[in-house]
Amino acid sequence: MIKVSLPDIQAAAQRIAPLIHHTPVLHSESIDAIAGCTVYFKCENFQKIGAFKMRGASNAILSLSAEERAQGVATHSSGNHAQAVARAAKVLGIPAYIVMPETAPKVKIEAVKGYGAEVILCPPKLKDREAYLAEVVSRTGAQVIHPYDDERIIAGQGTAALELLEEQPDLQIILTPVGGGGLLSGTAIAAKSLKPGIQVIAGEPLGADDAYRSFHSGKKEINTSTNTLADGLLTNLGDRNLEIILQYVDDIIRVSDEEIVQAMRLIWERMKIIIEPSCAVPFAAVLQQKERVAGKKIGIILSGGNVDLAKLPFR
Amino acid sequence: MIKVSLPDIQAAAQRIAPLIHHTPVLHSESIDAIAGCTVYFKCENFQKIGAFKMRGASNAILSLSAEERAQGVATHSSGNHAQAVARAAKVLGIPAYIVMPETAPKVKIEAVKGYGAEVILCPPKLKDREAYLAEVVSRTGAQVIHPYDDERIIAGQGTAALELLEEQPDLQIILTPVGGGGLLSGTAIAAKSLKPGIQVIAGEPLGADDAYRSFHSGKKEINTSTNTLADGLLTNLGDRNLEIILQYVDDIIRVSDEEIVQAMRLIWERMKIIIEPSCAVPFAAVLQQKERVAGKKIGIILSGGNVDLAKLPFR
Repeated sequence: MIKVSLPDIQAAAQRIAPLIHHTPVLHSESIDAIAGCTVYFKCENFQKIGAFKMRGASNAILSLSAEERAQGVATHSSGNHAQAVARAAKVLGIPAYIVMPETAPKVKIEAVKGYGAEVILCPPKLKDREAYLAEVVSRTGAQVIHPYDDERIIAGQGTAALELLEEQPDLQIILTPVGGGGLLSGTAIAAKSLKPGIQVIAGEPLGADDAYRSFHSGKKEINTSTNTLADGLLTNLGDRNLEIILQYVDDIIRVSDEEIVQAMRLIWERMKIIIEPSCAVPFAAVLQQKERVAGKKIGIILSGGNVDLAKLPFR
Repeated sequence: MIKVSLPDIQAAAQRIAPLIHHTPVLHSESIDAIAGCTVYFKCENFQKIGAFKMRGASNAILSLSAEERAQGVATHSSGNHAQAVARAAKVLGIPAYIVMPETAPKVKIEAVKGYGAEVILCPPKLKDREAYLAEVVSRTGAQVIHPYDDERIIAGQGTAALELLEEQPDLQIILTPVGGGGLLSGTAIAAKSLKPGIQVIAGEPLGADDAYRSFHSGKKEINTSTNTLADGLLTNLGDRNLEIILQYVDDIIRVSDEEIVQAMRLIWERMKIIIEPSCAVPFAAVLQQKERVAGKKIGIILSGGNVDLAKLPFR
């Protein structure tokens, strides 16, 4: 039973406004010429902390009661969600406890510490992360902010699509990447509620295609191993996210790492903006499916721009 | 005797409007915190062909008579000016002849050809370039479009500062990079005419510091050799450009390649936009002169974003 609806997303938009950027929507004639359609890019790479994750984390934390908030918030993540929770907590003046794998890049650990969060390092396996998080919660009483399988997170992530459709109400297709499914499920609810005729499509890396398989089998499939440079999309779908995706999403398109790098390079070269590999996945799907999108008006949510400049995939 | 004034720049702005982007002005809280001042970036990296050069080339070509235009335009350049002339000529439906050194990156030669220009390859020395250009002109009757030492080019480049000051009229300092001096001289005339109290400052690479030396000696000094990764700023100042710089510019600050890469990295990481090394030079100057700029409201013209992604200076 899905508990997120358009009014929740609209309320989230109002709630998080002071904590986030209203990001620009960009358009490029040269990209349109290459893609054979008109593409509007919602630039969450320009969002606070460099990714859309700031929206969901802000909404989840702002939805806590004053008593809950006072105890602080906790999560486990090595990526953009960790920074989002840490930053939102800092702005709101509450403690944040972030469990991160010892294997996480030092620069990411330092970024989270830079927001004043307490970082707890743990072995990299999921069960270790969960055990360490449980320990932190029992020690501090902090509220756990899950990265995607949470109604407040889903509503928060859906606010990017709300802004995009406000600026470009005639979109015929809207695309996002899919990892845990927070952005995709929030986008799907927002878009289909505002515009039932719109198509909602996700791009997913071939090397971590649990969402594609789940979408087609109708039940939760998992990645037993992953192999893609789109390191933000390795997780399996959350339960709430899967339910929403099965109800609202029209298709999931898988793309190779080669297609991801090609799409990323085009956006870097033609638009002069920095996006991370995971973020290039929906545009890679558009380039793969040229006949299907030909002449259409398309929106893509550019999910984030946090890359390690010393380790870029260009040759 | 300087023949470029504010009305020329205002006329250029009207003339070139159909051929260029009105580029955005971006601002970043995290950049401000690092720099200790408020910085507004005029994003000419988002300009057509990825650089401000589109402004001057468009103005120069549009200033030709119908008869002159019909014969076509010619220039020698291995960089952004070549693409700007080729693109403006294509849009206006006239021939373009671009003399390029055989040593130019293949991708740049292909880009110029992609705009339908005739590319004439020549040995890389300046005297060969000039000889080949003279030959093309005698063969075709084309009009030569100089990259910087030309009143029409100077007026065109000045339009970026016009737009920036329209959006941010309270700037106390405005900065550009300096190579041949087209952007700096146009910016200086526009800014000092609109706002006599504003300071106009240039950043220049230590390894090609002819403008710094000319500024202090009061006469044209040249680079006998150059050594910097800011490959857009290797040329010596033009005569007209020097005259304007001596009259209007307040200071020229030299920066090392290390400072350039550090400034470039900060803009890439914090703003998620792509700028070329030459473009990072004025922000490097700001970071070097923190005391001088402390608390001030500063405008920087980001000159361009054309980089070879396979050869980035980050480690």
